[in-house]
Amino acid sequence: MMGAEEGYLPGRHLLQVPGPTNVPDSVLRAIGSQTLDHRSPDFAALLQGLLPDLQAVFKTSAPVVMYAGSGTSASEAALVNTLSPGDAVFIVETGHFANLWARMATQLGLVVESVPTDWRSAIDPSLVYERLARDPEHSIKAVLVTHNETSTGVTSDVGAVRGAIDRAGHPALLFVDAVSSLGSIDYRHEEWGVDVTVAGSQKGLMLPAGLAFNAISERALAATESAKLTRSFWDWRPIVEQNRSGFFPYTPATNLLLGLRASLDLLAREGLAAVFARHIRHGRAARAAVRAWGLEVACRDEAACSPVVTAVMMPEGYSEVDFRNVALRGFGLALGAGLGQFAGRSFRIGHLGDFDDLTLVATLAGVELSLERAGVPHRRGGVAAALDVLRGE
Amino acid sequence: MMGAEEGYLPGRHLLQVPGPTNVPDSVLRAIGSQTLDHRSPDFAALLQGLLPDLQAVFKTSAPVVMYAGSGTSASEAALVNTLSPGDAVFIVETGHFANLWARMATQLGLVVESVPTDWRSAIDPSLVYERLARDPEHSIKAVLVTHNETSTGVTSDVGAVRGAIDRAGHPALLFVDAVSSLGSIDYRHEEWGVDVTVAGSQKGLMLPAGLAFNAISERALAATESAKLTRSFWDWRPIVEQNRSGFFPYTPATNLLLGLRASLDLLAREGLAAVFARHIRHGRAARAAVRAWGLEVACRDEAACSPVVTAVMMPEGYSEVDFRNVALRGFGLALGAGLGQFAGRSFRIGHLGDFDDLTLVATLAGVELSLERAGVPHRRGGVAAALDVLRGE
Repeated sequence: MMGAEEGYLPGRHLLQVPGPTNVPDSVLRAIGSQTLDHRSPDFAALLQGLLPDLQAVFKTSAPVVMYAGSGTSASEAALVNTLSPGDAVFIVETGHFANLWARMATQLGLVVESVPTDWRSAIDPSLVYERLARDPEHSIKAVLVTHNETSTGVTSDVGAVRGAIDRAGHPALLFVDAVSSLGSIDYRHEEWGVDVTVAGSQKGLMLPAGLAFNAISERALAATESAKLTRSFWDWRPIVEQNRSGFFPYTPATNLLLGLRASLDLLAREGLAAVFARHIRHGRAARAAVRAWGLEVACRDEAACSPVVTAVMMPEGYSEVDFRNVALRGFGLALGAGLGQFAGRSFRIGHLGDFDDLTLVATLAGVELSLERAGVPHRRGGVAAALDVLRGE
Repeated sequence: MMGAEEGYLPGRHLLQVPGPTNVPDSVLRAIGSQTLDHRSPDFAALLQGLLPDLQAVFKTSAPVVMYAGSGTSASEAALVNTLSPGDAVFIVETGHFANLWARMATQLGLVVESVPTDWRSAIDPSLVYERLARDPEHSIKAVLVTHNETSTGVTSDVGAVRGAIDRAGHPALLFVDAVSSLGSIDYRHEEWGVDVTVAGSQKGLMLPAGLAFNAISERALAATESAKLTRSFWDWRPIVEQNRSGFFPYTPATNLLLGLRASLDLLAREGLAAVFARHIRHGRAARAAVRAWGLEVACRDEAACSPVVTAVMMPEGYSEVDFRNVALRGFGLALGAGLGQFAGRSFRIGHLGDFDDLTLVATLAGVELSLERAGVPHRRGGVAAALDVLRGE
């Protein structure tokens, strides 16, 4: 680790922000391969192998489109491919990333109707039902949902939101930000009737940032024909068309695609069900630790607590910024910052991606030791409580 | 190399398309590093070191903005940050990439005025002068120039285009696609009065694809305030603002930025002047080989011939596709395809990026042997002619 004023900090740096996540060695080696000609038969074979395996991760039989880009770019692609200037979208503001999506929609010329929350609960599907039931003209064209709010550690029930839209008999499209859930939390694009799923490479897919994804329903693909927002680079249609023969309309991020091959192989070897169960167990252990410390988990409802990130409320009068600096400089442990209205008030423990029991224990030990060193009021015993969960007790 | 029907092809694969280019080992190793937290002090230090070194490569003191994206994405960013729906742009269609930029501008709602060419000459600056002189209302808002046409191997004189705009006393912005020239051919953003330079990572910067760049003039940055094309992810302003403290408004492609550090270090060690001279010399040697084979270089004017790619016209009745397949399957040599109106009629020899005399000779030997094996009429002696140039004769 560079940059610590104290000089070199020996040992392993723990990157326990809720993404970018630690990247497995086999993925790093693949990314460090010599460049592949993106117009070659080898590239076509690579891409034609990746696409069905990606569909399996999204649980869809419809197209998945990839971009060289950040997750944010896929949020923009979802909107500009399907909507027209002045279209209304509905969003329950469950956290910082939901808010950023709402702001982006406004910047792109959409009309955003949002419902604020205290950021500590999942989306209440009845809010969606009630709003859509009061929209007989169908002026709302899309409902935007953040599946797992990375800023708060709260997971919403996407299938229940789709149920609310359908109960209201409303044709709104359903767009879901699955950036921090895909490949870590059970996600079902097709079964849940999602029209566009937004994802990135740097979370459950265990890659560095730089690839962005849209899984698309047939209905969303049809919406591109009448959508009037301007688009060129984001346009799905030439990508879907050229992907069929194994190519892209422009130069893809070939080395990250080589890494994706390696990471999809790892997910398949472990099995998605086992991946999801592992994350659920680590989330339970992390929350047991937080409670043993006498601190508060941001998420109020245990059933909605995220399996991939635990946001912890700081005791009144103590700064998460100072605390995280102690963890980083003292123990080489990077924790997630408080974002938006949680800035200064909450820190986040990421437990997603390429992650295991012992690294979780090390992470929680880092938090416990740093709470003490930073003088934050707490009880000892978080690590012990997490061990009990890991033991199955 | 996978995928050859004959099985494993031993030895070194030669990726001599005009980008993506071969990537130096030190860059590959940097890209394969464990992920860096993009909110950490280490990341801020990395970015704050990169930005001035990038400015030196673009030869500008104004901001350079980076995206996780393809070069194409930077072409879009240039337009949406500065222009409004219905604005007219002027472009001389010197080749496939100029045409793609024109098509993108149309898709984004701009009005494109273009002048077709036979793709075998540089931009005639008098065309720009004459058109702008006939535009007293200043309806043309920008002139779009492709510095080095990757599809044809023709380099245009950007400074002369700026001179033509100024001679016409016209306020049009000047946008330049330097994707295949930056870091290989002398490029001077500031001296040539360029308002937006578009670049990508996979050519002279010797990285895999996945980073895109806009170098911006103060005038272009000011134009964002009145530009009405919608933008969110591409918006320069939050990037420039957050870059000042070493961060991005969204997750950057951290591993490619680590690679960029390594590649900028290599460019600095060789020295930009030496890099440019190396490419000029290799271009001369490649063209000497083509002429010795009795084939025709696409570029008609020696002074405009590209130092980084040589497009070769196929003899009438012979397909560049079949010929390139012989080179790929027989010798592990990837050559560039004919694009657009050159499809089927021209192949391209890339000689840019991390490249040297002996690899050039190997590449030209691969072409010469493949011409013979594919039964394409030619004379032997291209390799010998190139050796004479490399000897300085």
